[in-house]
Amino acid sequence: MEVKNTIQSGNIPTPALAIQAERAKATFDPELMNHFLEGSKEKSDEIKQMIQQMERDPILQVSSKVYDMTKAEHRLETARKIARLALYIELENFSSFENRMSLVSLMDPQLHTRIGVHLGLFLGCIRGNGTSEQMYYWVLNKEAAYVKQIYGCFAMTELAHGSNVAGLETTATYDVENEQFVINTPHIGATKWWIGGAAHSATHTTVYARLIVKGKDYGVKTFVVPLRDSNHNLNPGVVVGDIGAKMGRDGIDNGWIQFSNVRIPRYNMLQKYCKVSADGEVTEPPNNQLSYSALLGGRVVMVKDSFRWSAKVVTIAIRYAIARRQFKASKAGENDGENQIMNYPLHQRRLIPLLATAYAFSNGANVLDQLSKKTMDSLDHAVSQDDKAGIDKGIEEMKSLFVASGSLKSTCTWSTLNTIEQCRQACGGHGYSSYSGFGKTYNDWAVQCTWEGDNNILGMSIGKQLVKNISGVIKDGNKATGILDFLNNTKQYLNNEIVLKKDQLESLEQVLKAVEVALIRTANQALADLDKNGEDWDYIGARLVELSKMLAHFFMLKSFLEKFNTLEEGPMKLVLKQLAQLYSSSVILEGFSGIFLTFKVLDSDTVSYLSSEYIQKLCADLRPHVIPLTDAFNLSDMIINSSLGNYDGNVYENFFKIVKDRNPAPGSYTAPYEEEFRAHLNRPSLEDRQRNEINEDNEELV
Amino acid sequence: MEVKNTIQSGNIPTPALAIQAERAKATFDPELMNHFLEGSKEKSDEIKQMIQQMERDPILQVSSKVYDMTKAEHRLETARKIARLALYIELENFSSFENRMSLVSLMDPQLHTRIGVHLGLFLGCIRGNGTSEQMYYWVLNKEAAYVKQIYGCFAMTELAHGSNVAGLETTATYDVENEQFVINTPHIGATKWWIGGAAHSATHTTVYARLIVKGKDYGVKTFVVPLRDSNHNLNPGVVVGDIGAKMGRDGIDNGWIQFSNVRIPRYNMLQKYCKVSADGEVTEPPNNQLSYSALLGGRVVMVKDSFRWSAKVVTIAIRYAIARRQFKASKAGENDGENQIMNYPLHQRRLIPLLATAYAFSNGANVLDQLSKKTMDSLDHAVSQDDKAGIDKGIEEMKSLFVASGSLKSTCTWSTLNTIEQCRQACGGHGYSSYSGFGKTYNDWAVQCTWEGDNNILGMSIGKQLVKNISGVIKDGNKATGILDFLNNTKQYLNNEIVLKKDQLESLEQVLKAVEVALIRTANQALADLDKNGEDWDYIGARLVELSKMLAHFFMLKSFLEKFNTLEEGPMKLVLKQLAQLYSSSVILEGFSGIFLTFKVLDSDTVSYLSSEYIQKLCADLRPHVIPLTDAFNLSDMIINSSLGNYDGNVYENFFKIVKDRNPAPGSYTAPYEEEFRAHLNRPSLEDRQRNEINEDNEELV
Repeated sequence: MEVKNTIQSGNIPTPALAIQAERAKATFDPELMNHFLEGSKEKSDEIKQMIQQMERDPILQVSSKVYDMTKAEHRLETARKIARLALYIELENFSSFENRMSLVSLMDPQLHTRIGVHLGLFLGCIRGNGTSEQMYYWVLNKEAAYVKQIYGCFAMTELAHGSNVAGLETTATYDVENEQFVINTPHIGATKWWIGGAAHSATHTTVYARLIVKGKDYGVKTFVVPLRDSNHNLNPGVVVGDIGAKMGRDGIDNGWIQFSNVRIPRYNMLQKYCKVSADGEVTEPPNNQLSYSALLGGRVVMVKDSFRWSAKVVTIAIRYAIARRQFKASKAGENDGENQIMNYPLHQRRLIPLLATAYAFSNGANVLDQLSKKTMDSLDHAVSQDDKAGIDKGIEEMKSLFVASGSLKSTCTWSTLNTIEQCRQACGGHGYSSYSGFGKTYNDWAVQCTWEGDNNILGMSIGKQLVKNISGVIKDGNKATGILDFLNNTKQYLNNEIVLKKDQLESLEQVLKAVEVALIRTANQALADLDKNGEDWDYIGARLVELSKMLAHFFMLKSFLEKFNTLEEGPMKLVLKQLAQLYSSSVILEGFSGIFLTFKVLDSDTVSYLSSEYIQKLCADLRPHVIPLTDAFNLSDMIINSSLGNYDGNVYENFFKIVKDRNPAPGSYTAPYEEEFRAHLNRPSLEDRQRNEINEDNEELV
Repeated sequence: MEVKNTIQSGNIPTPALAIQAERAKATFDPELMNHFLEGSKEKSDEIKQMIQQMERDPILQVSSKVYDMTKAEHRLETARKIARLALYIELENFSSFENRMSLVSLMDPQLHTRIGVHLGLFLGCIRGNGTSEQMYYWVLNKEAAYVKQIYGCFAMTELAHGSNVAGLETTATYDVENEQFVINTPHIGATKWWIGGAAHSATHTTVYARLIVKGKDYGVKTFVVPLRDSNHNLNPGVVVGDIGAKMGRDGIDNGWIQFSNVRIPRYNMLQKYCKVSADGEVTEPPNNQLSYSALLGGRVVMVKDSFRWSAKVVTIAIRYAIARRQFKASKAGENDGENQIMNYPLHQRRLIPLLATAYAFSNGANVLDQLSKKTMDSLDHAVSQDDKAGIDKGIEEMKSLFVASGSLKSTCTWSTLNTIEQCRQACGGHGYSSYSGFGKTYNDWAVQCTWEGDNNILGMSIGKQLVKNISGVIKDGNKATGILDFLNNTKQYLNNEIVLKKDQLESLEQVLKAVEVALIRTANQALADLDKNGEDWDYIGARLVELSKMLAHFFMLKSFLEKFNTLEEGPMKLVLKQLAQLYSSSVILEGFSGIFLTFKVLDSDTVSYLSSEYIQKLCADLRPHVIPLTDAFNLSDMIINSSLGNYDGNVYENFFKIVKDRNPAPGSYTAPYEEEFRAHLNRPSLEDRQRNEINEDNEELV
């Protein structure tokens, strides 16, 4: 403990000693565990160096200051950070910059999104939908890749249309005489809305608009439309407004855009797939699916984010739970002091499964990331070689990847939102202070559940794939592939046989099998409900979302198991096994116990044992490792940015210091309302203020 | 639809027509339904008149402005509103003012809390713990009841102690020579923390401090300590600081306080129960429990709040779901347009159970409120008459009320937090706009889960009462009373008999019985686990919280059923029955399906039927009534204060108008960073900026 030159008496709290004691007992090296979490030593090292670089960078570094900034301040600072971050892009390769962005997303989410709209969505849209000439022109020739000359935004969503992209109403009408498209907003509902960067930053935008050629509507295509000239003045026909305050991420200048017959050259329609010739011939793409691959990158990022954000808040809550003492344990002796809240079984059950989930997400995100890169690369290769068989294979793999990434995006972002809230509550009242970081983290995260594929819409579409596939297997003898290949075992498992017995709970393989069987039986029930309701997919919507959630956990557990089997035996592997067991028994088996019991995959004795004993036992086994396990995330104090979560565990001194630093010193400040308030307290009596008009004398006058 | 003088073309959205069409089909009168919700026509009328009064009051009215205000602005406005509200207190009776406060809590939560700390906590503490002379002195003589002369805060929580009040470390040492108490903060951990109103407003505080007399520690008692003199200057020995930004309710000037040997007269110890005589004789209270009754009022308020806040957000989400169209229904014909999202079965399952929950909460809150008033009154009467038997009976009733209110406070505040988040997500991306109201509502609400009895701590203590009572019934042949009297049926239900069959789901009585049995069997399991683990209550913490949640729903359903049975037959009663059935089948039976299946209260076929058919059927039955059911909450547009939830349903025009009103008009404003950002985009090339130092020529130099 730090030596202080202030008078203190009584039982001075010593939280820092408590956290040191935990570290002293570590059975594994958190550094090595970090290699597991990041996927390799190389990535782990690079990430560490980047954190150090950004901690020292006076523009990019973050601090508790962010918790007191106004919207205007956030926007100004974020614009400056974009300029700074752009200088790093000019110097480092794509893979390194991607790792950097993953950290930026955690330490400064609004910066990540604001620059991400340009780099990920605007450029991603051009890359995904433009010809290679178009890509070369804007991305490299015009230097947009380096955040130079051009700053793009992404005008997809409209005020009246979000999830249903095919229903967008902005029009792009081809004028064959002038070889131009005319972009127009027909009515208020088609106003482009939520467009990040539009309000004050963007020079260009990719617009999703209905292609109309010679009176025919070809559906929604993408167009590059300049918004502002090089003096940053809005072009004629373009009106842009500020969308104002948001629940979080106020550093992004989201805007609305209305186009009034804005003309762009034919070249500005992105024509990788659908093409319009000079004289108005429209060539439709052979594989429409390919044009949606631009969405994939965002989903992968959100699964990676789910890991990092969960890791951050779990670290804060666990460090606080080690530092904080409250009440005596019910089994404590007469002279025992107050107990660390981490020692209470309920607190363990609240937090340690969330820790286990963060571990499961780390590996799952790595696997999804690699799978996505591999699939995209081989498909790109096949397309560039015009290799028909390769393209077909690539599309099949892409479909599987869409199922996996869709279920993971929705499930992991929901899970993380819950984790943030649970960790906040686990810090009691102090979690409500802005400086704890939870409020901003929650507000910044919340949008992940509704943007880039609303989680429920996404979940339904994934569940639908599952039911279609099981229907194919059962009715048409099809073979399911990719992430869904377990459906080929459908016939074997469509019975009421209990799959997972009490004595099999420890086996990750058996649990995985139980999840497969639960997925099969639930999907089969959904299929029956579908048939019964005349193929009404909407009717079984809730089940479809449930299936998607279970599928995501299936992917996570399966990936974990595969990775786990490659590890060397030792204390680290033992702890990882316990984490996987806890994740599978609490998050999966207990979390979906209604399903497991309904479809008789588990019996009620086993569920009772899970709730009464097994999960608590695993939590108790993991309890001694919680500090090394959170240290292993390697998140520096700057990234954690919380009054309650510093590495030193000295929570009270840290919290008090931030509160003092961020607010006027006692005695130095009078609130602007104090004088007025004092006058109010000292106001004349009611009778005086009523000029004594309501009194007995007056009554006599009536 | 309003006639507009602007050019619009295409399929202009007409959301206002959609909501009108729903109202035209109402089968019951929303006004009469409001009497059910408020408990009586009289209260309903009073509430309506108060809303009108506050809508017109230029100081008290709220608007979308609140979504853009800084912390400093919130604090200033809230202070002014307190002064305004105080003028109403001077004129109206307590019951009316209580109804007014219930509305203030909804429309302006920070105002409610900031004045509530004075009226509810400070004065409540004096009322609960002071003698009648003490109460007369501060509350009436010193006019604190009218927010005059004295403005109080409530210094309970310390930096290192919240939930464990008995462990607080501030000391109040009796100085027998001077007949004074010396209030002292021994170390940083004992700094009073989170104290609402301390930073700039309060003149006095009630302090929870350890009474030390002649070296002996008598535990935590309450003391009135002046903080500021009538010039609003801090008294010597008192240091107060601002606690800064919070997740929500920034209009409250929460502060920290350190006392350095501050002397107060003996009279300032609140001595209703524990007394200290001039020469230092300490008389301990006969019934310590009575001193905690001050907490009861807050719990009742939070249950009432749960109803009102749930009603508000459900109204927004449902009105939006009627206005919003997205996709075609899967069973739609070729020429059908986009479907209202309220028509999708999944959306119904997401929102209508939340609506049903708000209805259940309304009545439950009324019942709890009445029960609480009755119990307090008869206990107060018995105490004033020194009626020993009456006091004992009152204490028994109070215990039962503590169990009921504790389980309801924790369960309802959790439920409402979830409802807010679910309603936000149900509004898709637009729910993320500050002007939708969800962000602020969530942030303002979140604290309810951790303050005035952290929900988990509270839940555990309630579950413990349940287990202790069932143990008493089983082992000692005791008779359970009050809310727990169903435990007297324990023996009858401790078997594996299925209690609720598929064909009994529609019977509210049968469902209620099933909940009783589930509570009994779960409590019995908890008791077994407790015995197995050597009476370690902490070990079964998770089960205890589960029990508390189920108990709260039991109370709600039981109260609903009792009220329901008094209603006249008719269309309104029919809809209320469907709401109760939906609440019980989705929130209770499906929500706790793991429990119901594990303890064989339901069989798996029934749960499967619930999920696949029954709940969806109820949602479909209620679908036509959702607008009249939300209209019945009688919440005016000012109270709703959301871009998405106005009565007219004209969401797009309303949202656009707020965004335009609250932000600079297009063309009138240049962001402070635009020039800098433009310069960045137009920066020289990397080579130029690097003075061409990194090039091939240089390489040759090496």
